[in-house]
Amino acid sequence: MSDAQSILIYVENARDAEPVHRIDAESISESARKIFPRIDVVEATTDTPDIPSLEKATFFIGGQIDKERLKRHAKQLAIVHSLNAGVEKLMPLDWLPDSAVLTNSRGIHGTRAGEFSMMALLMLNNRAPHYASLQRDRSWQRTFGDPIRGKVVMIFGVGSLGGAAAEASKCIGLEVWGVRRDGAPHPAVDRMYTPADFRGALAEVDFLLLSCPLTPETRGVIGAPELARLRPGVGLVNISRGDVIEEEALVESLRRGHLSGAVLDVFRQEPLPAESELWDVPNLAIFPHVSSDSSVGYTAASSAIFLENLTRWLSGQPLRNVVIPSRGY
Amino acid sequence: MSDAQSILIYVENARDAEPVHRIDAESISESARKIFPRIDVVEATTDTPDIPSLEKATFFIGGQIDKERLKRHAKQLAIVHSLNAGVEKLMPLDWLPDSAVLTNSRGIHGTRAGEFSMMALLMLNNRAPHYASLQRDRSWQRTFGDPIRGKVVMIFGVGSLGGAAAEASKCIGLEVWGVRRDGAPHPAVDRMYTPADFRGALAEVDFLLLSCPLTPETRGVIGAPELARLRPGVGLVNISRGDVIEEEALVESLRRGHLSGAVLDVFRQEPLPAESELWDVPNLAIFPHVSSDSSVGYTAASSAIFLENLTRWLSGQPLRNVVIPSRGY
Repeated sequence: MSDAQSILIYVENARDAEPVHRIDAESISESARKIFPRIDVVEATTDTPDIPSLEKATFFIGGQIDKERLKRHAKQLAIVHSLNAGVEKLMPLDWLPDSAVLTNSRGIHGTRAGEFSMMALLMLNNRAPHYASLQRDRSWQRTFGDPIRGKVVMIFGVGSLGGAAAEASKCIGLEVWGVRRDGAPHPAVDRMYTPADFRGALAEVDFLLLSCPLTPETRGVIGAPELARLRPGVGLVNISRGDVIEEEALVESLRRGHLSGAVLDVFRQEPLPAESELWDVPNLAIFPHVSSDSSVGYTAASSAIFLENLTRWLSGQPLRNVVIPSRGY
Repeated sequence: MSDAQSILIYVENARDAEPVHRIDAESISESARKIFPRIDVVEATTDTPDIPSLEKATFFIGGQIDKERLKRHAKQLAIVHSLNAGVEKLMPLDWLPDSAVLTNSRGIHGTRAGEFSMMALLMLNNRAPHYASLQRDRSWQRTFGDPIRGKVVMIFGVGSLGGAAAEASKCIGLEVWGVRRDGAPHPAVDRMYTPADFRGALAEVDFLLLSCPLTPETRGVIGAPELARLRPGVGLVNISRGDVIEEEALVESLRRGHLSGAVLDVFRQEPLPAESELWDVPNLAIFPHVSSDSSVGYTAASSAIFLENLTRWLSGQPLRNVVIPSRGY
């Protein structure tokens, strides 16, 4: 970039974006100009793109990223910033201009994800999905429970979501086992496993919580053999992506009563169609992908990551939240 | 008592008592004899009482206490120990022999009650009862939430259940307001109100949790006027007794959508009959009175209160957990 030029930020909102997911272009413009005066911000929507601007833009911020459009028109990009934490739909990165990196919004879901995880684990321990099934049948059947304190949760994927889930689990007295690609320790995790060796520990956990990104390695990683290794009565939480579990195996395990319950926030197909068999599987609580979003400051927090990277880029520092193509997140 | 005499403990189990509520007479006998060697323990059931033993007994331990039977036959009793924390069904105490006091099991439900309260508040903040209603309709509708941290819960009744609920609420970052008969401070409560002045604060809370004993003062204490003072969107938890709330007013508020949701563990009529309208009131999660019981060590913990009182009684010390007739708990 030459000092005489201005730098263009291209902000793209979906036309039907819910307010919580709408990027505030004006606020980005204001903040960016404090970092560098000669910034221009163009706002477009996914269905009415501004192609001439896209061709000149150095930065792109958006939620539903049209890979083909960027591949064809966005030759000048340095950073493509995604509002999402999970970017599996953008893989592989063969559409990304050679000049650019993809950054994501991992790390901003922590508070909500921790609270949701705590709720889901307590719901399973108190058989809330089971009592919701009984409620549908107008049936009063008591089963006495026991405290969650001292039980074991295995958290598959200890990144920003899983780390928040681990801290929340510690707060309610759970023993926390984690599974991490590199097996590196985490302050809230008592024992760390890797994707290669976690299966041997499945027989000793009370809860299994999935919070990994969806990658070729994690697709279907929890299938019938893994569920069979769990003791009868274990509860399962998924706040990752639906495709991490083999849905048929999960349904079968719930119907047989091997899993005592499940709290799912993510599904292979979203929105879950009305005709899906999942809606009335026993002891299954369905949430419509709301575990980690927050109506307060979501896009502002995502934009803050971009603005920090803008500062770093201008001063030649390494960027944060860069997606590494080989690992997929 | 004369040193030459033995002391008789009369243990009464309901014939159909669930294992979690069955008193282990043998274990009580063993422990009691370590405290005082000349102890006899008689075990009977509610439907096959041992009247001659009851007439001689100094101590009575039971769950479903037959007031008339004790009034007629149990003239020698010093302590009647109830397995329950709530003893509203035993009021007034006109059946209790003049020689005796009634002790209850308050204080042993803390761990479970704290965990249940935390779950219920997180469920309301994450709209779990709402999503369970949508699930019944096979409907996917997202509403984004916000963190619970920093919101306000009012806990009506800060005794042992409410104290545990207050500590659990603090743990998830809630601001805790309490209501207590005497207005005395509690370490986990930020502001304490009394039954006379709490109504003015109802308009500022995000959640209302009921954990008081049922007494003439608390019967129906949350009715239409109190619910109307709450802001739209407030969530309600009841782990107290069903009669503390006016059920019709609660149902009406949920149907209108003024309350955003409720988690109820107690009902005016239990078991809740199949024909009750409550089963499919929107945004209402029904639990069958399981918030505070524990399948682990429940009667053992209650028996421990009795055994401690046995020691105190033998040495002339003041007893604990004595029910005060004028306040009803």
